[in-house]
Amino acid sequence: MKLIMAVVQDKDSVKLSDALVKADYRATKLASTGGFLKAGNTTFLIGTEDENIQDVMRIIKENCESRDQLVAPISPMGGNADSYVPYPVEVQVGGATVFVLPVEQFEQF
Amino acid sequence: MKLIMAVVQDKDSVKLSDALVKADYRATKLASTGGFLKAGNTTFLIGTEDENIQDVMRIIKENCESRDQLVAPISPMGGNADSYVPYPVEVQVGGATVFVLPVEQFEQF
Amino acid sequence: MKLIMAVVQDKDSVKLSDALVKADYRATKLASTGGFLKAGNTTFLIGTEDENIQDVMRIIKENCESRDQLVAPISPMGGNADSYVPYPVEVQVGGATVFVLPVEQFEQF
Ligand code: NI
Ligand code: NI
Ligand code: NI
Repeated sequence: MKLIMAVVQDKDSVKLSDALVKADYRATKLASTGGFLKAGNTTFLIGTEDENIQDVMRIIKENCESRDQLVAPISPMGGNADSYVPYPVEVQVGGATVFVLPVEQFEQF
Repeated sequence: MKLIMAVVQDKDSVKLSDALVKADYRATKLASTGGFLKAGNTTFLIGTEDENIQDVMRIIKENCESRDQLVAPISPMGGNADSYVPYPVEVQVGGATVFVLPVEQFEQF
Repeated sequence: MKLIMAVVQDKDSVKLSDALVKADYRATKLASTGGFLKAGNTTFLIGTEDENIQDVMRIIKENCESRDQLVAPISPMGGNADSYVPYPVEVQVGGATVFVLPVEQFEQF
């Protein structure tokens, strides 16, 4: 038995939840902020047998991997027009930081 | 030293907190959602010596064990009267998913 | 690789975040309540290499260590004037409870 703790961006959180449920893995989500990833994020707790670890890793990677995304510029409200960029910019979104922890005992009541 | 992570339903959370305090165990509660248990849930972090693990398990089981409960039907608001069930139904409530993690170092400042 | 879980008081949380960022450590913060510490608290998750553990411990200690603080008395609203103490009192604030957990696998996607 292992406990997987995965910190992912909020924007990928629903997608990852759905993919885990579909593959029959149970996860608990903890509200979390800052840190490993810049935007708002969610920490998933996933308890699973050792033989499923690589499968869960694949699901996390498929749904959360860091990628570039074009973002339309937001026109400046009021001042700061000097720094306005009138074309889409590429930003990095997503990403996951994953820890696999050993479990000494597991109980369900 | 071990770190116990226990995911329990919100409805059992206060009862479990009180029982842990009464037995002199310290717990931190993390807000959590979905996953191991269907309703809203709370994740307890309980750090304790190895010899107390079974005692903490007993307290969690006594306060959170999954059980059936009769629920009065809610009369349908507006439509969907076809699916209305006019008698109490038995639903499963409670339950706990508990991980015991090894601790390599423990500090209090 | 280790995962440090540190429960600290909310009032020390921003200071600790800043100190960790300045020292180039990444942390995720989980909203947490009650338990190891009396006031509202925050649980930090910090993943780092074994050789950095004592450095992270030092940063936590420096920013969160339990200490006495003089608190100005709050004048009683309405009743209970009998228990009013008209001089500053010393209360204990801060404190950190820190668990170092072994990590079997670590991935970033
Ligand atoms: Ni195992
Ligand atoms: Ni021990
Ligand atoms: Ni290591």
